[in-house]
Amino acid sequence: MKKNPLLGRDVISMRDFEAAEIRAILEQCGRFAKSREPLLQGKVLANLFFEPSTRTRLSFDAAMKRLGGATIGFADALSTSISKGESLWDTIRVAEGYCDIMVIRHPAEGSARLAAEATRVPVINGGDGSNQHPTQTLLDLYTLKQRTGRIEELKIAFVGDLKYGRTVHSLIRSLSWFKAELWLVSPPSLRLPEDFLEDLRESGTRHHIVEEIAAIPDAVDVLYLTRIQKERFADAIEYERVRNAYQVNPTNVARFGPKVTLMHPLPRVNEIHAALDSHPGAAWFDQAHNGVIVRQALLALCLGAA
Amino acid sequence: MKKNPLLGRDVISMRDFEAAEIRAILEQCGRFAKSREPLLQGKVLANLFFEPSTRTRLSFDAAMKRLGGATIGFADALSTSISKGESLWDTIRVAEGYCDIMVIRHPAEGSARLAAEATRVPVINGGDGSNQHPTQTLLDLYTLKQRTGRIEELKIAFVGDLKYGRTVHSLIRSLSWFKAELWLVSPPSLRLPEDFLEDLRESGTRHHIVEEIAAIPDAVDVLYLTRIQKERFADAIEYERVRNAYQVNPTNVARFGPKVTLMHPLPRVNEIHAALDSHPGAAWFDQAHNGVIVRQALLALCLGAA
Amino acid sequence: MKKNPLLGRDVISMRDFEAAEIRAILEQCGRFAKSREPLLQGKVLANLFFEPSTRTRLSFDAAMKRLGGATIGFADALSTSISKGESLWDTIRVAEGYCDIMVIRHPAEGSARLAAEATRVPVINGGDGSNQHPTQTLLDLYTLKQRTGRIEELKIAFVGDLKYGRTVHSLIRSLSWFKAELWLVSPPSLRLPEDFLEDLRESGTRHHIVEEIAAIPDAVDVLYLTRIQKERFADAIEYERVRNAYQVNPTNVARFGPKVTLMHPLPRVNEIHAALDSHPGAAWFDQAHNGVIVRQALLALCLGAA
Repeated sequence: MKKNPLLGRDVISMRDFEAAEIRAILEQCGRFAKSREPLLQGKVLANLFFEPSTRTRLSFDAAMKRLGGATIGFADALSTSISKGESLWDTIRVAEGYCDIMVIRHPAEGSARLAAEATRVPVINGGDGSNQHPTQTLLDLYTLKQRTGRIEELKIAFVGDLKYGRTVHSLIRSLSWFKAELWLVSPPSLRLPEDFLEDLRESGTRHHIVEEIAAIPDAVDVLYLTRIQKERFADAIEYERVRNAYQVNPTNVARFGPKVTLMHPLPRVNEIHAALDSHPGAAWFDQAHNGVIVRQALLALCLGAA
Repeated sequence: MKKNPLLGRDVISMRDFEAAEIRAILEQCGRFAKSREPLLQGKVLANLFFEPSTRTRLSFDAAMKRLGGATIGFADALSTSISKGESLWDTIRVAEGYCDIMVIRHPAEGSARLAAEATRVPVINGGDGSNQHPTQTLLDLYTLKQRTGRIEELKIAFVGDLKYGRTVHSLIRSLSWFKAELWLVSPPSLRLPEDFLEDLRESGTRHHIVEEIAAIPDAVDVLYLTRIQKERFADAIEYERVRNAYQVNPTNVARFGPKVTLMHPLPRVNEIHAALDSHPGAAWFDQAHNGVIVRQALLALCLGAA
Repeated sequence: MKKNPLLGRDVISMRDFEAAEIRAILEQCGRFAKSREPLLQGKVLANLFFEPSTRTRLSFDAAMKRLGGATIGFADALSTSISKGESLWDTIRVAEGYCDIMVIRHPAEGSARLAAEATRVPVINGGDGSNQHPTQTLLDLYTLKQRTGRIEELKIAFVGDLKYGRTVHSLIRSLSWFKAELWLVSPPSLRLPEDFLEDLRESGTRHHIVEEIAAIPDAVDVLYLTRIQKERFADAIEYERVRNAYQVNPTNVARFGPKVTLMHPLPRVNEIHAALDSHPGAAWFDQAHNGVIVRQALLALCLGAA
């Protein structure tokens, strides 16, 4: 039997795991893609969503139920004791008596770490503000492996909004451990923040800051697209210009060939031409579906059932 | 083994089914009335309620759980990615990775059909705006069969608001396939819309447009009552007058005898005198309870487990 | 096999049970502390929360799921048919067709009793306004027994807000059946209401109305603390004064020794000094966790499965 890299551990930040551990987790995911063994029968997951996130909540819920387990929880903080002035610490200490494992989504950075310190049951971070969202990063890595056969030495272009968005930040940081080469494609106003660039320099990760899709080389393995949010722009005309400049469509992705992998964390608005849904490399719905598989693996591993 | 009329199909509109198929579905319902075989163990239903509907949501939830299955979902659209501009198509494509079957309730007409086109998992329409609500029609037909022993050649009076209300429209249309004779009892302002009347004429269904309960013949099999909503009236005095004129009570239903079936889709406000709850023909709570049985049958049939 | 004191009964008010029955229920709780037998597999609990209460809802949900059962329900009344003018009676009659047992939480006093009269399935009161919350009282009694070895002849000081708060009222009344001696410690404005004092006199329960923690004797078995709510005070300075006067801390509880049991129904704000979380007698999180155990026992007993 393989070593379980998550036994007795929490899943709070990608930084808590070594490269070898991430590889071990991704290897375990495979077995959950098809089978539905009731490994967690009799176990209860508490889905504690202090901030709404239907997608993350439902995929954890589905993951637990595919494993034969049950879930309890709430979808927003409005009706919780937090609104009566209770500390997060107390809420978590109370909830630990109701469950075997908990997922926490909370707007405050560091809240998942605090929860993990408060309780003896395993805690999985479902997103703590603009800080960490490790299960999203793991599902992206799993999809990369599934599509390209590896997570090492990938050539990846990130396109669109690289300034905001936990998803891109966390994935870029993780890829820096696996010898990726990156093209960072954005308007100047949405460039990757300086501290992430510094990390890339420190880890010796090759990266290219460019402003146009045209500057991405043909031989790239992956285009990772993002949603450009209107709220980020003071000027509506500037928003329209940027949005159009970074939209991918059959014409501007043709030169990458049919083997390129096209990813997007979803939801998308209009950054992807509708015709690309039938591109052989389109992986966005796979990413979403892999989210359930990866979360099954995490739940089973943390509870020592895998 | 009987043929499964729903294998590999969606349940979007009553019009999608032939009379023989409806009879076959109703025949299957019987077995779910008593037994609780865990036919759907390991299966996940996504209850996607973009519009609140506690009754429909809870009865699908109960149906799935009686069959040993699990449910995930949401009770309104507020916290979904739809609020971030995501298309319904994308939401459904993402959700299909979380579940084996989905129920959709959505305010837009045609939304359930669109969802069924987006996904390979079976879709059941839990009500799409003022358009269709097929599971309500099926539970009404099942209750008619249970109470009168048949769904053919029934004499039914519909009383109250025949203008608004999907429930009455859909049931009337379905009854037209089974040789019913109808009395349509309403004030002129709440008469059955012209296109439904045209359908009745085309199908050769005998029907009588009247304005008073007194005009219903004694030999009718069923009185189908409806809620008259205050919001439909500009004038509060007119509302009071209509409401009182169409209330049924022990006095005005006495002449129909103890064998008449009294139905109402619920919720009711005061269109039924309280004493009628103990009338032997009062079927409103049976209708609600039959909703679980019919939905069990639909879930099991669509998933090929019945 | 022991007699089941709840078979075929509802759990609406502590007054419905004799002292011997309460002892029998508490004895049954023990077996649920450790084991997770799927005693309620195939059963459905309806959690009907017409008023939000995350803690009570989640602990019933967890209790049902630990027993292998399923739950359906809602967390507030906003989306229910009540908002369309439906009577509570009708809502309960409809819901009984969806479930095997129901928990009701409702802001109106007497609502749980009304629900129990409407339906043939067992009803457990999850709190009806300021009236009753029997499962909270049972978990307090269970915790008392767990900590002190008995529920008879306890010396208990209640501290803080004794005027509002169902929890304290219901527990005090129940303790009066078990020969307790009480110290009622509060400012004059938050004193125990007269009708409860009358009950104590009638039942011959020794009690001492005092205003300071200093007036509690060293030999007390239990300090039961409560949250003093700012909203109860017209004057902010008076609130601060009271709050500080009734806060417990390592200094003012030292004289009670390490064997004193410290209880609080939670949520707490700042009525307990943080250092007391590591006091050997601190029982507040145990109380919360015992809530699941007691509710498991109630569900199993009411359904005849224990």
